[in-house]
Amino acid sequence: MSPTPEIRKDTVNNSFVILSPTRSKRPSDFKSKSNPNPNPSSQSTTCPFCAGNEHQCAPEIFRSPEHGRWKVRCIENLYPALSRDVNNEGGDFSGSGVVTSGFGFHDVIIETPEHEVKLSSLDKEGVKDVLLAYKKRVAQLCAVDAIRYVQVFKNHGASAGASMSHSHSQILALPVLPTTASTRLDSMKQYHNQTGKCILCDIQTDQLLIDKSTHFISIAPFASTFAFETWIVPCYHSSHFHELDEDKAIDLGGLLKLTLQKLSVQLNDPPYNLMIHTSPVKVTPAESPYTHWYIQIVPQLSTIGGFEMGTGCYINPVFPEDAAKILRVVEVP
Amino acid sequence: MSPTPEIRKDTVNNSFVILSPTRSKRPSDFKSKSNPNPNPSSQSTTCPFCAGNEHQCAPEIFRSPEHGRWKVRCIENLYPALSRDVNNEGGDFSGSGVVTSGFGFHDVIIETPEHEVKLSSLDKEGVKDVLLAYKKRVAQLCAVDAIRYVQVFKNHGASAGASMSHSHSQILALPVLPTTASTRLDSMKQYHNQTGKCILCDIQTDQLLIDKSTHFISIAPFASTFAFETWIVPCYHSSHFHELDEDKAIDLGGLLKLTLQKLSVQLNDPPYNLMIHTSPVKVTPAESPYTHWYIQIVPQLSTIGGFEMGTGCYINPVFPEDAAKILRVVEVP
Ligand SMILES: Nc1ncnc2c1ncn2[C@@H]1O[C@H](COP(=O)(O)OP(=O)(O)O[C@H]2O[C@H](CO)[C@@H](O)[C@H](O)[C@H]2O)[C@@H](O)[C@H]1O
Ligand SMILES: Nc1ncnc2c1ncn2[C@@H]1O[C@H](COP(=O)(O)OP(=O)(O)O[C@H]2O[C@H](CO)[C@@H](O)[C@H](O)[C@H]2O)[C@@H](O)[C@H]1O
Repeated sequence: MSPTPEIRKDTVNNSFVILSPTRSKRPSDFKSKSNPNPNPSSQSTTCPFCAGNEHQCAPEIFRSPEHGRWKVRCIENLYPALSRDVNNEGGDFSGSGVVTSGFGFHDVIIETPEHEVKLSSLDKEGVKDVLLAYKKRVAQLCAVDAIRYVQVFKNHGASAGASMSHSHSQILALPVLPTTASTRLDSMKQYHNQTGKCILCDIQTDQLLIDKSTHFISIAPFASTFAFETWIVPCYHSSHFHELDEDKAIDLGGLLKLTLQKLSVQLNDPPYNLMIHTSPVKVTPAESPYTHWYIQIVPQLSTIGGFEMGTGCYINPVFPEDAAKILRVVEVP
Repeated sequence: MSPTPEIRKDTVNNSFVILSPTRSKRPSDFKSKSNPNPNPSSQSTTCPFCAGNEHQCAPEIFRSPEHGRWKVRCIENLYPALSRDVNNEGGDFSGSGVVTSGFGFHDVIIETPEHEVKLSSLDKEGVKDVLLAYKKRVAQLCAVDAIRYVQVFKNHGASAGASMSHSHSQILALPVLPTTASTRLDSMKQYHNQTGKCILCDIQTDQLLIDKSTHFISIAPFASTFAFETWIVPCYHSSHFHELDEDKAIDLGGLLKLTLQKLSVQLNDPPYNLMIHTSPVKVTPAESPYTHWYIQIVPQLSTIGGFEMGTGCYINPVFPEDAAKILRVVEVP
């Protein structure tokens, strides 16, 4: 007998999830045993992200280290969703405006010069270098007047949307505040109004804790939208990801590596998306006590359908308490 | 030269979309030419949805016609996301409650007794029968006291989430109002406050119109989230899908069939999701002048990534004006 389903509310994002173990038992006409999208193997002559092929890439913004062999590169996206060249004609949707020029920035972070290396295989210093590259670029983008929000994200594997197999992340800087960020801001404000506390400083971990480092925790969120969804939350109060300092970056590098390794071992190198949820570029002094950034990691084990698209409510067959229990004890190499 | 990107706001759903033709040019390490998920062929002995295998299904709720050979069946989902058996202990998330029992209904509409027949291949009478089955079941579910929202949806093809290949739809009745429905209600209210009009009665079709029947229009929405996204909107004002009468159902059946056929011809039988966006079960007299149902059809031509998951903002390479222009002239068999 499966436990009965539950509907839970994610009070950070003001959304619902249906936890329904029964769902994992349904058959499928389409399931195939073999991985339909194995990561293409070494492409060191054709992959533009590989060391030696830098000339095949869009212009570099910076590299780290600056001299000698690079470990991380930040480059422009050759097929950008937004254009850094057009005029930003306002981007103001507060009135009845419904369209603005597509001004913005779309960059790529190449996480390693080597084609076969995954983010989780870098050592914790290497992961730290990637985090500090995010930080540096996000800070630059936040300094551009018209930019209102910066989204850092990573697609790993074809079913997580990746088109390039060489390990990389992306950063998109927007002249508008996306709906999820404004909804989160409202929820965080409401919690603060009701309790006087920051919702993420106050987060209940009980049976949901997976791991803990000096400055961060990893948890299965109470209203997980996907099976084995994991959040990494700073234990200190901080509105913006790019406030991260060197010390905390190495600590976070260790925990992020551990988390990705555990997911990889437990779920057999699943496709996943990683998102950094930070606060709007401009946070007022009134907002700063209740805004708190975090990282969301979502293994993509199934394809969503019309219910999720229609309602924004996800159906998750794995209770987060169970996911946390499993991930707590996974042994990594 | 591609046209420059644009950011558009969907004022019905209060969300953003980036229209960015450049994006369609990016290469992919993963792309394969062959369809990775061809629809499994006839399974008339093993498919529970086929005529003759009714005993393999969860209990029937009704069939149409009631006697003789059935054309459409409404059955319980054998692996329901919600449980019709548990007590509804409130489902009230308005206070600080964050969890409720998973009370609700999850049904399947089998659209045809034959395994090989698609919704778009039924004649318009057949599509009408499916629409009237939706209507009948939705009306029954709306009569259950604790139900606050009913989502009708269809997954066609594996990359649209389908696990069963035999043509079917699903209906989920929820004890909560999902976020998208409450956001839409708010947006519709705001538009009505500002203009005195219903946002969907007032919808601008200009270059976005695809087709028109007596009571309905099909359009490419101004802020299309996916390439070739199509909406079918009643030209008459109506809050709830289940107000549809026999006359309008046959008219809608014709337009829906035409729309699905056009998408199938133009995009080579793409996977797609269809969602009926209706109003909350209980609409007050004050809300009724501005709530208006519609159908959304989304071909699934690409996998979304971390940007969309993180921001709720989609990147669409095809301007809806272009999609409408193409779909207007597609010839169907
Ligand atoms: N030579 C080169 N120099 C510089 N950049 C290069 C390049 N060659 C390719 N690129 C860029 O590298 C990026 C690789 O990104 P990913 O593999 O994470 O997914 P992609 O952005 O393609 O789409 C996924 O993520 C986006 C955003 O979430 C979704 O819209 C989409 O549906 C999903 O498939 C692409 O954006 C591409 O434009
Ligand atoms: N013998 C039988 N009798 C009665 N019912 C039977 C049955 N055998 C199977 N079923 C049910 O038939 C339904 C078929 O539905 P779909 O193919 O549209 O997608 P599914 O719901 O599996 O998941 C997709 O849609 C949901 C909702 O959008 C997503 O959560 C999910 O990720 C996505 O893959 C399933 O829900 C299944 O439980």
